[in-house]
Amino acid sequence: MSIAHSSFYNMLKVPEHQVAGHLAIDGKLGPLVDDSGRFYKPLQGDGRGNKELAFYESFSSDTRVPDHIRKYFPVCYGSQLLEASNGSGLLHHLVLQDIVSSHRNPSIMDVKIGSRTWYPEASDNYIQKCLEKDRRTTTVSLGFRIAGLQLYEGKESGYWRPGRKEVQSFTVYNVRSILRRFVSSNSSIGNENSDCSFAPSIYGGSAGILEQLLELKAWFEDQTIYHFHSCSLLILFDKESVSKGSASVPEIKLIDFAHVVEGKGVIDHNFLGGLCSLIKFVSEVLSDSKESSIKDCVESEKPGICTDNGNCQ
Amino acid sequence: MSIAHSSFYNMLKVPEHQVAGHLAIDGKLGPLVDDSGRFYKPLQGDGRGNKELAFYESFSSDTRVPDHIRKYFPVCYGSQLLEASNGSGLLHHLVLQDIVSSHRNPSIMDVKIGSRTWYPEASDNYIQKCLEKDRRTTTVSLGFRIAGLQLYEGKESGYWRPGRKEVQSFTVYNVRSILRRFVSSNSSIGNENSDCSFAPSIYGGSAGILEQLLELKAWFEDQTIYHFHSCSLLILFDKESVSKGSASVPEIKLIDFAHVVEGKGVIDHNFLGGLCSLIKFVSEVLSDSKESSIKDCVESEKPGICTDNGNCQ
Repeated sequence: MSIAHSSFYNMLKVPEHQVAGHLAIDGKLGPLVDDSGRFYKPLQGDGRGNKELAFYESFSSDTRVPDHIRKYFPVCYGSQLLEASNGSGLLHHLVLQDIVSSHRNPSIMDVKIGSRTWYPEASDNYIQKCLEKDRRTTTVSLGFRIAGLQLYEGKESGYWRPGRKEVQSFTVYNVRSILRRFVSSNSSIGNENSDCSFAPSIYGGSAGILEQLLELKAWFEDQTIYHFHSCSLLILFDKESVSKGSASVPEIKLIDFAHVVEGKGVIDHNFLGGLCSLIKFVSEVLSDSKESSIKDCVESEKPGICTDNGNCQ
Repeated sequence: MSIAHSSFYNMLKVPEHQVAGHLAIDGKLGPLVDDSGRFYKPLQGDGRGNKELAFYESFSSDTRVPDHIRKYFPVCYGSQLLEASNGSGLLHHLVLQDIVSSHRNPSIMDVKIGSRTWYPEASDNYIQKCLEKDRRTTTVSLGFRIAGLQLYEGKESGYWRPGRKEVQSFTVYNVRSILRRFVSSNSSIGNENSDCSFAPSIYGGSAGILEQLLELKAWFEDQTIYHFHSCSLLILFDKESVSKGSASVPEIKLIDFAHVVEGKGVIDHNFLGGLCSLIKFVSEVLSDSKESSIKDCVESEKPGICTDNGNCQ
């Protein structure tokens, strides 16, 4: 742990692309970022911060975690004393890789995985509070809920960033629409008309979101080290790069580990079930998009054939 | 639906091998069986019976269910008016295939799958009641709980059949031990010493329990027709046949469909997560048993090799 120098403070700023959690604005406590690609998350005083730090310490030294899985977690650089964003003075911050910094105009979805966000060891009050929210959102019905998102819609319209209340009221129908809209070129003209034209390159392909989710799934079918309660999958990609045809790899990262507990020889069936549900939704968007491009090819009477990524040739 | 003749009543009897649920003894209401391989389950008056009948009707005519999955469900022959076992007079009974009738001395496990037995549409009272029991048993921690079992221990000792209270107090440790003891030849001499000698032929092999569970899992990753709340997997085999080397195929059947609801386009992530947890436990018993037979082969200095089913050659 190190204490930052005062000259360093000037470099810290409020993250531009934070889609869920507490924001460091209006004198509130929240995470900060710098220009070197680091993300500073204040360690909450109720023990959650220390639990998350303990998780990162345990995880980073655990040789049972294979490298192809480790890449789905942000790199952790320990903790640091920094001026808190709410002006309350020096506070310990977790120093993490700023996942978003490598993306120019990222479209981001924060998907909280699991059909329950509580864990057996928690207090009755905590369980009832979580259960109430899990039932109110899609957590119980879908096995996951969207906790926040931003969708880049182009230079003129900027980002679509629904407010917290709107996000919390998402139904199963809304979630399905958003998963389509997330990979559509015409996202601003309404859910019903989403063209899903980016689905083959973002959800599909050997480096796409679906393959990454399946790689994670295979690990979750086997690993009994950790149970990831109330943890999120951050799904992000740069729509502009994709539009321009440049090779932008969509990314998945797991975040928020304040409620991770030991697996004690049992798989994380709660996370795994939710992950499989998300996989099914993503697969459906992908196969729908392929079907509709085949239909388009046929309807336009082009002599070409439809390629694997859904384009006409 | 038909009304049984009085001569028929004499043939009905209390099932010999029922390991969970209400028993038709001491003037209580419970299921009955006949000698022709049929199982008569009284339709409970609170709507659950009709819900189960409705499920069987919907399921049996649903062409989306593939044949290789249909074999995991008991055949349903409709409903019939019969004298209830509690002497209350004529009562509608669901007429099902008696799964156990084809086994001579069956070892049976009733495993209730899912990390919750309640469903979003249920009343708050019902949810709290289920939740309390789910937390008290291994349902929340493991994603499944053993709801009942009988273990055939040989001609002299007969069956080990733990009482309802004992079953309800099973811990994760107990469940792991029972899954070993279930496939051991020396089950009566204590959990610690279970030899798991039947694991390769019961859990393993191309027609074994593990392969059957994996076949079910593949369906649950995809099917969005039904959500099977509070439903059980019945796992059964005939230990004596296995001991004698005869080809006895271990069986899996899903039972108890009073709380099945429509999937509405979402996979049953609750059932799937629990199923994957059970699969992990069964796989571990199987791979432990293979390892220990390799060790035995080495220790006995036999010149032979260990075969796939864990035997020395």
